[in-house]
Amino acid sequence: MITPLLGSSFIGYARSAGTQPCGQGVNPGTGDKLPPIYMAATPAEVERAVTLAAAAFPVYSALSGKARAGFLRAIAVRIESAVEEIALRGVQETGLPEARMRGETGRTAGQLRMFATLIDEGSWVDARIEHAQADRLPVPKPDLRSMLRPLGPVAVFCASNFPLAFSVAGGDTASALAAGCPVVVIAHASHPGLAEIVGHAVTAAARESGMPEGVFSLLYGGGLTIGQAVVKHPVIQAVGFTGSRTGGMALMEIAEHRPQPIPVYAEMSSVNPLVILPGALARGEAVLAEAYYASLTLGVGQFCTNPGLVFLPDHAGDEFLTHLGTLVETGAPGTMLNASICNAYAAATQQFATTLGVQTLARCAQEPGFGQGAPVVFTVSARDFMANPALQGEIFGPGALIVRGSLVEIQDSIATLEGQLTATIHGTEEELAAHASLVFALQQRAGRLVFNGFPTGVEVCTSMVHGGPFPATSDGRSTSVGTLAINRFCRAVAWQNFPQSALPAELQDGRA
Amino acid sequence: MITPLLGSSFIGYARSAGTQPCGQGVNPGTGDKLPPIYMAATPAEVERAVTLAAAAFPVYSALSGKARAGFLRAIAVRIESAVEEIALRGVQETGLPEARMRGETGRTAGQLRMFATLIDEGSWVDARIEHAQADRLPVPKPDLRSMLRPLGPVAVFCASNFPLAFSVAGGDTASALAAGCPVVVIAHASHPGLAEIVGHAVTAAARESGMPEGVFSLLYGGGLTIGQAVVKHPVIQAVGFTGSRTGGMALMEIAEHRPQPIPVYAEMSSVNPLVILPGALARGEAVLAEAYYASLTLGVGQFCTNPGLVFLPDHAGDEFLTHLGTLVETGAPGTMLNASICNAYAAATQQFATTLGVQTLARCAQEPGFGQGAPVVFTVSARDFMANPALQGEIFGPGALIVRGSLVEIQDSIATLEGQLTATIHGTEEELAAHASLVFALQQRAGRLVFNGFPTGVEVCTSMVHGGPFPATSDGRSTSVGTLAINRFCRAVAWQNFPQSALPAELQDGRA
Repeated sequence: MITPLLGSSFIGYARSAGTQPCGQGVNPGTGDKLPPIYMAATPAEVERAVTLAAAAFPVYSALSGKARAGFLRAIAVRIESAVEEIALRGVQETGLPEARMRGETGRTAGQLRMFATLIDEGSWVDARIEHAQADRLPVPKPDLRSMLRPLGPVAVFCASNFPLAFSVAGGDTASALAAGCPVVVIAHASHPGLAEIVGHAVTAAARESGMPEGVFSLLYGGGLTIGQAVVKHPVIQAVGFTGSRTGGMALMEIAEHRPQPIPVYAEMSSVNPLVILPGALARGEAVLAEAYYASLTLGVGQFCTNPGLVFLPDHAGDEFLTHLGTLVETGAPGTMLNASICNAYAAATQQFATTLGVQTLARCAQEPGFGQGAPVVFTVSARDFMANPALQGEIFGPGALIVRGSLVEIQDSIATLEGQLTATIHGTEEELAAHASLVFALQQRAGRLVFNGFPTGVEVCTSMVHGGPFPATSDGRSTSVGTLAINRFCRAVAWQNFPQSALPAELQDGRA
Repeated sequence: MITPLLGSSFIGYARSAGTQPCGQGVNPGTGDKLPPIYMAATPAEVERAVTLAAAAFPVYSALSGKARAGFLRAIAVRIESAVEEIALRGVQETGLPEARMRGETGRTAGQLRMFATLIDEGSWVDARIEHAQADRLPVPKPDLRSMLRPLGPVAVFCASNFPLAFSVAGGDTASALAAGCPVVVIAHASHPGLAEIVGHAVTAAARESGMPEGVFSLLYGGGLTIGQAVVKHPVIQAVGFTGSRTGGMALMEIAEHRPQPIPVYAEMSSVNPLVILPGALARGEAVLAEAYYASLTLGVGQFCTNPGLVFLPDHAGDEFLTHLGTLVETGAPGTMLNASICNAYAAATQQFATTLGVQTLARCAQEPGFGQGAPVVFTVSARDFMANPALQGEIFGPGALIVRGSLVEIQDSIATLEGQLTATIHGTEEELAAHASLVFALQQRAGRLVFNGFPTGVEVCTSMVHGGPFPATSDGRSTSVGTLAINRFCRAVAWQNFPQSALPAELQDGRA
C-alpha cells in the first residue's frame, strides 16, 4: 500500500483541516519542489492535539509495559513495510543515498524494538520496595515503595540530519512512548513527506493496538511558531530536540520561563575532538589519514558525531597532513540535506578561511554543484586556537580544523574546550596511561570516549551514551541513544503505606 | 574536645583571614547575639576554595567507593562526637529543642553512613559492559561500557530549617561527596556556630582520611554575595539548595545564564495537600483532627513537608473542624528559627486572614512571645480557592488552609495545584479505587503519596522520594533524601574500545 500524501497534520486520529500553506518538500540536489504543499495546523488544532495528549496520558501511562511494547513493535512493523516509499521519497527530500534511507529505516525499527524489549522485561522502572517495621524505635518505619513514572505529554522536534532515526518515530519518540508519555511531534520542514509516511505508520499502529487517541500527533507549521506554542503549553512536560545551538537554546529559554519550567533535551552542537598521539602516527600516518577522512566525510559530514576538530602534535604528523590534504583535494562534493544547511556550511568555511592564524590545508578541487558541500581542512596553531573561542564553533558538514602544538599546548587547548558528545584518542595503551590527565580532561567534557576509532556510527545499545555537557546537549546528565534514554522522560514517585490494590503492579508484593 | 569557634571560613585545610564582619548567631527566642562575630571570606579566598575543589576533583573522583565511604564514615564519627557542643549551640542558635538537635545529629550521621554503605557496595554506578562483536554484519560492534561518573565540584547551600541534616554535612553534601564531587558549602546566616562545629568535623575527617585539600570548603559571607559568586564560577558543575522559592529561583536564573548552564537542585516550597475522604471521617473525626494538628505544628510547622493545605468535603467533617479549632485555640506558640522566618509567618497569616473569602477557623489564644509563631487555621470554599492562585502560597510555620467543597470541586481544585513534595489521602481502600482519577491527579503533582498518614517525618531510605514537580523543587526528576539522591551529581559516560588498563575499575572485565 502506498501512503497517500495529504499534506496535513495528524491531530490524534483525525487529520488537520488547515488551509495555510507552510512549505513543501524540496529536492536539495535540484531545487525541484515536491508535491504536495503542506498546510499548517491551526491554533485550535494545536490546542486539540495537546489536549488529546493530556487526556491520553492517564490511560496510556497506566498500560502495562507489555501493552506499550506491543504498540512500539506495531510501529516498527508499519515503518518497515513502508520502506520502499521511504527510500523513494527520502532520497528526493534529503539528498541522502537510498542505502542510507533503507539503513536508517532499519535502525528506526530497531530502536523501537529495543525499547519494546526493555519495557517488556520491565526492570528499568527501578522498583524499590521497603516493608514497614512497626516495632522500630524510636518511630515505626512506614511501608515505602518507589518506581519511575512517566512525566506526561512530551514535545518532540524532528531533526533534519536523521529524517527517520531522530524524527517522527525516532529515538526521542520511541523513548517517550516507551516511558508512557504521549508524544506531540513537530515535523521538520526539510522532509515533510517522509514525516507524513511515518506519521501514517504510527497512527495506524496506534489504532490497531487500541491506543487512546492523542497518544501521538504530528504537526506541520514550523518549529518557530507551532513548535514554540507546543513547548509553552502547560500540558507539555518535557521536550526532545536535535538541531542547531540557536534552536536548542531558544527552546531552553522558553521552557525555563514557563510558569512551570520543564526539562529540555536538546542535542545541539559538538565538534567531537580527536587527539592524535605520536604512537598512533607511528602505526602509519597514511592509513590514519584515510580512516579519518572517511569519518569526516561520511554522510557529507552531517552527523552530530562528525570529528571536526583534530589535535595533532607539531613535532610529528606531517605525513598525516599530506595524505589528508591529497584526499581532500581529490575528494568529491556531496549534496547536503537542504539549502539552509548548505548555505550555513559555505558561510562557516568562509569564516574559518578568513580567520587570522587559520591556514587552508586543502580544499576539494572539484567545484561543488547545486546544493553541494565540498570537503575542506584548515590548520591553526594551538596558541591561536586557544586565543579565539570562535574556532570551537561547529562547521556542520565535511569541514575540519586541525590544531597543532606541543603535547602541553594540546592539553592546555583541551582545557578550554566546551562540552562534546564524543572525544577520541588515537595512540597506544601506554600513551593512555602516560597522558591520564589529558584523558580525564576529555572525559570531563564528553559523553563518550573513543579509543583508536571514530565517533561516527553510534551504536544503539544499553551502554551507549549519546549526550555530553553543554553545549553538546542542554542536559549533560542524559543520553538520546540507547536504553538509558528512557530515563529522560521519567521521575521517581514514592508511595507510603498504600494498600496493594492501589499500587502500580510493579510495586505490589510478590512482583519484584 | 570543644571546637574553638573562630568565626572564619574553611578554605580547604586553611582558615580564612577575612576581616569583614558578616553577622553572628542570634538566639531567636531572646534576640541575644552569640559570639563570635563571623567574618566573610574574601573574594580571593572564594576563588581559592573553588580552585582547590577543581584540583581535588580528579584525585577525589578517582578514589574507590570504599575510600570515599571511609571518609563519609569518618565525618559521621566526628559529628557524633561533637553532639554535646551541637546540642548546646544548636538550641541557642535555632530555638529548636535539645532532643531535636540530638536527633538531627543522629540523622545526619545516619545519612552519611547510608551513602557510605551505598558506595562501599558499589552497584549504584550502573556499570554496563557490552563486548565487541567483530564479526557482526553489516558492521562490527565495538566494545562499549558505561557507568555513572561525578559531575565535578558542587555548591551546597545550608538550610535554615535543618541546621544539620540539610546543612554543612547534610544530605546534599553527603550525596555529592559520595558521588565523588568536592563540595563548597555556603553557610546559612541563621546558625553560623553550628556550621563551624560541623565544618571542623568534616575538615578533620578529610585530613585523617587523607583526602585531597579542596574536597571540602565552608564559606561565610552570605548566599546573595558569596553564594552567587560560587554558583557563577565555571568550575562549579551543580548546586544543592533548600530554602525559599525566591532564593531557589534566583539560583536557577543564575545557573541557566552561565556560559555553561548547570543543574540546580533547589527544594523550594510545598503546601503538601492532604485530602480527607468521607471514609476517614467515619473512623473518627476527633482522632484525625488530633493527628493532623500534631503534624501541622511539629517543629513549629517549619518542615518542608508540613501539611498546610487540607481538602475537606463540605457535607461532612464539621466535627473534625470543631476539634481542630479547639486544639488550635488551646495550643501553644513556639519559637521560630529566626526573626526573618518569624516575620514572614506573621505577614503570611495576616495576608490569608484578610483575603476575600477566607475565614479564620481558629487562632491560638495564647499571644506569641518574642520570636514565636502561633498556630492558626483558615477555611475557604473550593470555588474561592480555585479563583485565587495566591491561596496556594506556602505559609511557612504552623498555619493551614482548609478548602471545603463537594468531591467534584475538590477534584477540580487539585487539578489547579502546583507541584508538591508530598500529597496525602485519608480514606478507605475502596475510596482509593473509587477516586482513581483524583489519586492520579495527586500523583502527577507530587514526589511522594501518603495514605492515612502524615507527610512530616521523612524516612531516609532507598525508596524515599523527597522531590516533586516545580515549584516544590527546581528539578522534579530528583530527590534530595534517600540513596537515589546520589544520581543528582552524576552523569553516564561511555568508553568505546578502551583497553582494560584505562577503564575505571567498575568497567573492567571480571569486576561486574
